[in-house]
Amino acid sequence: MTPTTVASSTAALATIAVDEPAGFRTEHDLLGDRRVPTAAYWGVHTLRAIENFPITGQPLSTNPHLVRGLAAVKLAAARANRELGLLDAERADAIEAACREILDGELLREFVVDVIQGGAGTSSNMNANEVIANRALELLGQEKGDYAALHPNDHVNLSQSTNDVYPTAVRIATVMGIDDLLAALSELEDAFAAKATEFRTVVKMGRTQLQDAVPMTLGQEFGTYAVTIGEDRERLRESAGLVHEINLGATAIGTGLNAPAGYAEAACRHLGGITGLPLVTAFDLIEATQDMGAFVHLSGVLKRVAVKLSKICNDLRLLSSGPRAGLAEINLPPVQSGSSIMPGKINPVIPEVVNQVAFEVIGNDVTITLAAEGGQLQLNAFEPVIVHSLHKSITHLTAACHTLSRRCVSGITANAARLRESVEHSIGLVTALNPYLGYAESTAIAQEALASGRGVAELVLERGLLTAERLEELLRPERLANLSA
Amino acid sequence: MTPTTVASSTAALATIAVDEPAGFRTEHDLLGDRRVPTAAYWGVHTLRAIENFPITGQPLSTNPHLVRGLAAVKLAAARANRELGLLDAERADAIEAACREILDGELLREFVVDVIQGGAGTSSNMNANEVIANRALELLGQEKGDYAALHPNDHVNLSQSTNDVYPTAVRIATVMGIDDLLAALSELEDAFAAKATEFRTVVKMGRTQLQDAVPMTLGQEFGTYAVTIGEDRERLRESAGLVHEINLGATAIGTGLNAPAGYAEAACRHLGGITGLPLVTAFDLIEATQDMGAFVHLSGVLKRVAVKLSKICNDLRLLSSGPRAGLAEINLPPVQSGSSIMPGKINPVIPEVVNQVAFEVIGNDVTITLAAEGGQLQLNAFEPVIVHSLHKSITHLTAACHTLSRRCVSGITANAARLRESVEHSIGLVTALNPYLGYAESTAIAQEALASGRGVAELVLERGLLTAERLEELLRPERLANLSA
Amino acid sequence: MTPTTVASSTAALATIAVDEPAGFRTEHDLLGDRRVPTAAYWGVHTLRAIENFPITGQPLSTNPHLVRGLAAVKLAAARANRELGLLDAERADAIEAACREILDGELLREFVVDVIQGGAGTSSNMNANEVIANRALELLGQEKGDYAALHPNDHVNLSQSTNDVYPTAVRIATVMGIDDLLAALSELEDAFAAKATEFRTVVKMGRTQLQDAVPMTLGQEFGTYAVTIGEDRERLRESAGLVHEINLGATAIGTGLNAPAGYAEAACRHLGGITGLPLVTAFDLIEATQDMGAFVHLSGVLKRVAVKLSKICNDLRLLSSGPRAGLAEINLPPVQSGSSIMPGKINPVIPEVVNQVAFEVIGNDVTITLAAEGGQLQLNAFEPVIVHSLHKSITHLTAACHTLSRRCVSGITANAARLRESVEHSIGLVTALNPYLGYAESTAIAQEALASGRGVAELVLERGLLTAERLEELLRPERLANLSA
Amino acid sequence: MTPTTVASSTAALATIAVDEPAGFRTEHDLLGDRRVPTAAYWGVHTLRAIENFPITGQPLSTNPHLVRGLAAVKLAAARANRELGLLDAERADAIEAACREILDGELLREFVVDVIQGGAGTSSNMNANEVIANRALELLGQEKGDYAALHPNDHVNLSQSTNDVYPTAVRIATVMGIDDLLAALSELEDAFAAKATEFRTVVKMGRTQLQDAVPMTLGQEFGTYAVTIGEDRERLRESAGLVHEINLGATAIGTGLNAPAGYAEAACRHLGGITGLPLVTAFDLIEATQDMGAFVHLSGVLKRVAVKLSKICNDLRLLSSGPRAGLAEINLPPVQSGSSIMPGKINPVIPEVVNQVAFEVIGNDVTITLAAEGGQLQLNAFEPVIVHSLHKSITHLTAACHTLSRRCVSGITANAARLRESVEHSIGLVTALNPYLGYAESTAIAQEALASGRGVAELVLERGLLTAERLEELLRPERLANLSA
Repeated sequence: MTPTTVASSTAALATIAVDEPAGFRTEHDLLGDRRVPTAAYWGVHTLRAIENFPITGQPLSTNPHLVRGLAAVKLAAARANRELGLLDAERADAIEAACREILDGELLREFVVDVIQGGAGTSSNMNANEVIANRALELLGQEKGDYAALHPNDHVNLSQSTNDVYPTAVRIATVMGIDDLLAALSELEDAFAAKATEFRTVVKMGRTQLQDAVPMTLGQEFGTYAVTIGEDRERLRESAGLVHEINLGATAIGTGLNAPAGYAEAACRHLGGITGLPLVTAFDLIEATQDMGAFVHLSGVLKRVAVKLSKICNDLRLLSSGPRAGLAEINLPPVQSGSSIMPGKINPVIPEVVNQVAFEVIGNDVTITLAAEGGQLQLNAFEPVIVHSLHKSITHLTAACHTLSRRCVSGITANAARLRESVEHSIGLVTALNPYLGYAESTAIAQEALASGRGVAELVLERGLLTAERLEELLRPERLANLSA
Repeated sequence: MTPTTVASSTAALATIAVDEPAGFRTEHDLLGDRRVPTAAYWGVHTLRAIENFPITGQPLSTNPHLVRGLAAVKLAAARANRELGLLDAERADAIEAACREILDGELLREFVVDVIQGGAGTSSNMNANEVIANRALELLGQEKGDYAALHPNDHVNLSQSTNDVYPTAVRIATVMGIDDLLAALSELEDAFAAKATEFRTVVKMGRTQLQDAVPMTLGQEFGTYAVTIGEDRERLRESAGLVHEINLGATAIGTGLNAPAGYAEAACRHLGGITGLPLVTAFDLIEATQDMGAFVHLSGVLKRVAVKLSKICNDLRLLSSGPRAGLAEINLPPVQSGSSIMPGKINPVIPEVVNQVAFEVIGNDVTITLAAEGGQLQLNAFEPVIVHSLHKSITHLTAACHTLSRRCVSGITANAARLRESVEHSIGLVTALNPYLGYAESTAIAQEALASGRGVAELVLERGLLTAERLEELLRPERLANLSA
Repeated sequence: MTPTTVASSTAALATIAVDEPAGFRTEHDLLGDRRVPTAAYWGVHTLRAIENFPITGQPLSTNPHLVRGLAAVKLAAARANRELGLLDAERADAIEAACREILDGELLREFVVDVIQGGAGTSSNMNANEVIANRALELLGQEKGDYAALHPNDHVNLSQSTNDVYPTAVRIATVMGIDDLLAALSELEDAFAAKATEFRTVVKMGRTQLQDAVPMTLGQEFGTYAVTIGEDRERLRESAGLVHEINLGATAIGTGLNAPAGYAEAACRHLGGITGLPLVTAFDLIEATQDMGAFVHLSGVLKRVAVKLSKICNDLRLLSSGPRAGLAEINLPPVQSGSSIMPGKINPVIPEVVNQVAFEVIGNDVTITLAAEGGQLQLNAFEPVIVHSLHKSITHLTAACHTLSRRCVSGITANAARLRESVEHSIGLVTALNPYLGYAESTAIAQEALASGRGVAELVLERGLLTAERLEELLRPERLANLSA
Repeated sequence: MTPTTVASSTAALATIAVDEPAGFRTEHDLLGDRRVPTAAYWGVHTLRAIENFPITGQPLSTNPHLVRGLAAVKLAAARANRELGLLDAERADAIEAACREILDGELLREFVVDVIQGGAGTSSNMNANEVIANRALELLGQEKGDYAALHPNDHVNLSQSTNDVYPTAVRIATVMGIDDLLAALSELEDAFAAKATEFRTVVKMGRTQLQDAVPMTLGQEFGTYAVTIGEDRERLRESAGLVHEINLGATAIGTGLNAPAGYAEAACRHLGGITGLPLVTAFDLIEATQDMGAFVHLSGVLKRVAVKLSKICNDLRLLSSGPRAGLAEINLPPVQSGSSIMPGKINPVIPEVVNQVAFEVIGNDVTITLAAEGGQLQLNAFEPVIVHSLHKSITHLTAACHTLSRRCVSGITANAARLRESVEHSIGLVTALNPYLGYAESTAIAQEALASGRGVAELVLERGLLTAERLEELLRPERLANLSA
């Protein structure tokens, strides 16, 4: 196995600094000259960002959707600039080829700036500009760093600003991530629906406030989970619609200063073509450039999904509690042994990990809320942590849904005999017999049942209030649970 | 009844217990007999709740929308029961008359249970059942407490369970509250839009990351606030749609056990008629009975509204900072004197109070999230704190919008001369001249401006690069801010 | 004054405006002249605040500790001013008498400004200044509003600023509230400890991850709750220590400008005497004036308390689930009937209400966090919402602890036979026999137990591996639960 | 450069499965046989966990403090077991040697289970047990996987349970992390203190509610930041004390079942020796095993630190706003260029990244709160996400403090002339002259200043109210800011 190293930007940099003393080129920015590794496609602006933001050790490459989003925007911008006569064919072709490679998953590890960064995404945009420029230079037969031939800012970033590029790339990445999550939710919904069918006739006691209430079927219980996930999926799909609105062409603050006429329209059209998404340009670009509303909204809906998943997993863990001293209504498939000190113990580890992801998503929502609230005047400087938090919420929820449907729900079995017995012994059963026995008789039976520990059905038969056939009819699962025959 | 002062449930009870030793009737429940004040329309179940939940001192009457929602549901149920032949005309008429009074705002102070209560809303439902029953008894010429004639449970609560009544009443209350908020947001949007028109030609520096960026107009800045509030209003309206789905007819856990055929349809139809709302019965009543998804969703959207309002108020406070050592771009109307120790000081107290409401709403969202996550199996026992939190978020946001539009935004004035001067002295202005002067010349001018403290326009004229007329043309507000002529 | 009912500031105002057209006096501030009800002790600054902040309908009087805190500070300031020769004896005596009345609970309903208010507490301070001044004027035989004789600012607020008065009053209020909460926690701790003793020998299965683990006693389980609450109490006590540090004497921003030499020391000394609290003046008054750290810290500890209480209540609800289809290990005392549709149903309403208070406290912590983060430069303008949130957290937790200990914990009973049976039938029991039977034999027994549904003890006896006496010895509660004999 | 691969557990596994078909050994657990890469030190339990929890792609190795904590606990346990005669010298030596290597940073990449995992840390414990066992086997000259000679459970995990090992290791890791953070905070405090000294005589306007208040010095402003960080450091240090209490010896649920007498004492003693920390065994091991209070508490204090850092960074960004249209009171050192479209623009990227870390920490606190609240009965199954969140909060705050002190604070400069000018032109200045001019004259001057735009000092001189010398004396920085001479 190739030794994997912790993919820390700073570690990567340190390695370079030590191991390759000769392999450097010199680049220049406003602060002066700096040596950049010859092998690196990124340049001096990225180097500054690596040094300024050694926060999480997680480089931008850990968010491949965002890297692809940046490449898609740069490609669309190049096509728009070419169409408007601002970019010559040779440079445009080279930029296009470089962007295509990134869209195909190449050069991912060149995206090295930390996911949490100051500068409202400027360092992410600069990282993309530099990687694309240097790869385009290579394709043009030039040396990396020979920016006179093709410049990260003047050509790759032409007609653009971080403040329209970055939010647009983030939206594309978000849509891609949400698509994955929608598919995972759909799979989970199907897994619960299949169990709902399988357990359709398994009668059990329903509970309110953890106290025995009235009968239902286990199929209804699992059907509820399918329905609720289906609703969440629908809400999530709607919310994803909000992030199809982009601000490309806004440039610095939304006034479009120094972007040519027709650019916003052309860039949006090309970006739609590249991504296959029904993107639209925001009506008010100044508002769109500063507003984090769509992300706050989406995070709120992800939180809703998390709350539901957590509630479902709480239920699964409760219903499978046991094996002896718990409810023991269902069995989760064992996926790993639980304890060394307690032989044979099996724990509900899959629901447990889903709960934890849900808690993380709920915390991320608070982070996003604070970051959104902190925006000032014409820009929100804190978009990177919003993006990072959304990315974690979306990808971790997706992973959680997959492991929950595949390693837990699909293998759940029911303890049908125990469940039926719990109904037959339930005092709550008397509620269903109420219209046939009358309230006074029902109450008397309930009181005797509670005091004696005996079952309602048993007492009804003993007292000769109903025939066994009649009683069996009244307690049919389909009837109790209001199932159609 | 003796006038209750500060409306604490416990205080009310204590007062009664001390002041009216003779004026009691006796009521009975499972736990035994209890004396209830003769004057009270509420009964023994409400009394138990008062004793069990002395938490906030805020009685249910502080949420009049919810009281009305309960009355509307009880009225709809009575009509459905009558239609289905379960309730005779005399009792139905009496119940209807009592409900009508409550819908008209009568008997509000009889709703005395604490807004935070255990029991998933049972005590709120019982409070309503008892008040309606006793008022109906009065109307029938009976004594309060003579439940043989008309019973809180058997007649007022007929075919119902707290678990379908309470969530339905809450939804109606929420829709009413959201309507108020939508109107307040609309008024605020209009106030900002009016200022956008007023300040249409007031040119100023736009800022990103609190640093001078490129020119825009103050009208654009205020227009952004109008647009962003308009979007929020639209999202809120959509979310309110989710709470039009009710579970009336679900009874205990959604299986509809002991509710007659046709009841759910009839009750929803009557409730729609009473409220004028396009209510629909949920497809899966079991899911609908346990699911808090719509409330979590709505709270997430309210949080979005709060985030935007807070950001806008942060901007207003920043732009009006001064009067000398701040940005001093705009003036908020003075609404109270600021400080005794600093004569003449005026503070931005209206935006400050809106910020605080926003922080409260964001906190409420976390409370709602925890309560929703804590639901178990067929019911969420914590719906009362969800309802209380939503109620606070909605009503406080409504109040905040009103005070913001009426006492602040509508009276804002601009320091136009200072704003224009800040543009003329801005180094960022060079960005707009870039296409006409070339990058090299632009950079040289920018550097001299920064070092010398002089203005870009002044330097351009001094160097004879552009005529005064040309310069004036290039710096026209309409051009800089990308306004159509 | 006409009795005010639901104590809404705006309602109060409206009532006055309608009912007492003739009974007004005229007061003046920077914005002009306004009519104030003759009966009111508050004045024009309070009137402005009522109009500006109609947010929650909860007046300052709903926080009596804070009203007392303000009176204590005003009294201490008057004594310090007198001592320093700044205030004559006659005025000082009158102010002192007015403050004393407020400390004794009089004039509470005159504190009418909304608990959520802009202005960093200025309106609360002004409300206090005006009420004290007018009451002092009355005591001096003057008319209310005759401020030439005794002025709200010049005399009551002498040497003070809202920015040192309000934070100091809040700290005193907080200490008083925390004292109540500590007592309530102590009572709850004792209730659990009593149950720990009562259930000392009731053996049961311990559970990890809701799966049967190894035996323990119910006494140990309840003892844990006592211990954990005791720890929280200790942490809370420590945190309360942080709010004994005050900034009186800081005036506007902490530089003490225009406060006489010796004032800070004298005021702190008198305030300590009045309150009986070991108050100290902060080392750096500029830092102390802007810093919300102690409140954020305290709220974090209150959140810790809430988390523990919620976990304990979750456990109580789980352990008492049933009566038939749940764990049914313990019984909570019934405190109200649960359901009309399900006769005899009893729900765990007391733990449920405590859970909800805990969720509210956790949400309040987020509100406080946002408000603290939003402070700018020399002051935090959002202290009122911090104060309001802390007040709710403290008082609601106090109420929750009382109802939990008195209406639930003290009446809990154990189903000892069922608990012992669950141990005897547990497969986890084999862990305890492991050292005596060997791992191979233990595993075989465990497997047979799981497959056959029979008990470990039964199988051990059947196989003749241990005598009944030896087995009984090995399964002694004291041994299994590691209790000392 | 060595190609870095994204260190995803699943990616690592996939690579192995594809690339090394022949290099496998077979291991066995309750679920059956599985092939494990020969090169891997981890075994079948780790393999199951990799498959069950493909959530974040972040392996345990990204938390080196925790890996070291696990090794320290295993080493202490081995020494205790040896001392108590439970483990022979040969195996104990081999385990000790393996643990020592891990403590020295070796084998880090063998810790491959995902940081978010179900099972309450069992998979982390098993990962450690397997790596240590296999490394010890190698040192003994045995093959990896030859567990008959030395077993992950029977020998490495002897007398232990995940439920005491994992929390103890986490506490040690946390203490190590907090030590780093305390050092970083101390460095930041020093940086601010140095600036406080440097700016000691730079007079400026203090502001409350963003409005000009009274004069102070920039040194006082920066001194405040040093003081507040110092207080936080002290609170953090106290809180870290809480995590020195461990539950080693508790085994499964705290009853210590199957742990030999004397083990808890010996293990704690050895662990103290190994780590150099003053560890103590908790008084009540059952409570200590289930309680997350110390982590909730610590996270609350980290949140406090985050709130303060965020507030400070907000101030720094505000004070350095400009260069022309902002406050422009201070200059942050430029660390990267800001914008391609706006030449020469420099942004406050370092404070911005610190703000974002603060928002993340605040979100993490909510995650931790939810996870702690979700604990049930004798264990909290969600400790891994608590640990992960704490780890992020601590390490990211540490990194943020370093970059803030080194790349921002230490290079801040003041615009002293502008600051002094703002004081001289301030209307608030009149407050300081009030005792010398009288209130009426002061008010007249303030009004003329506001209306005319002229300065208070200028007007005072013009009117001949004070001599220039006297005025200069009264406006001395030391006097205005209440500095001692």
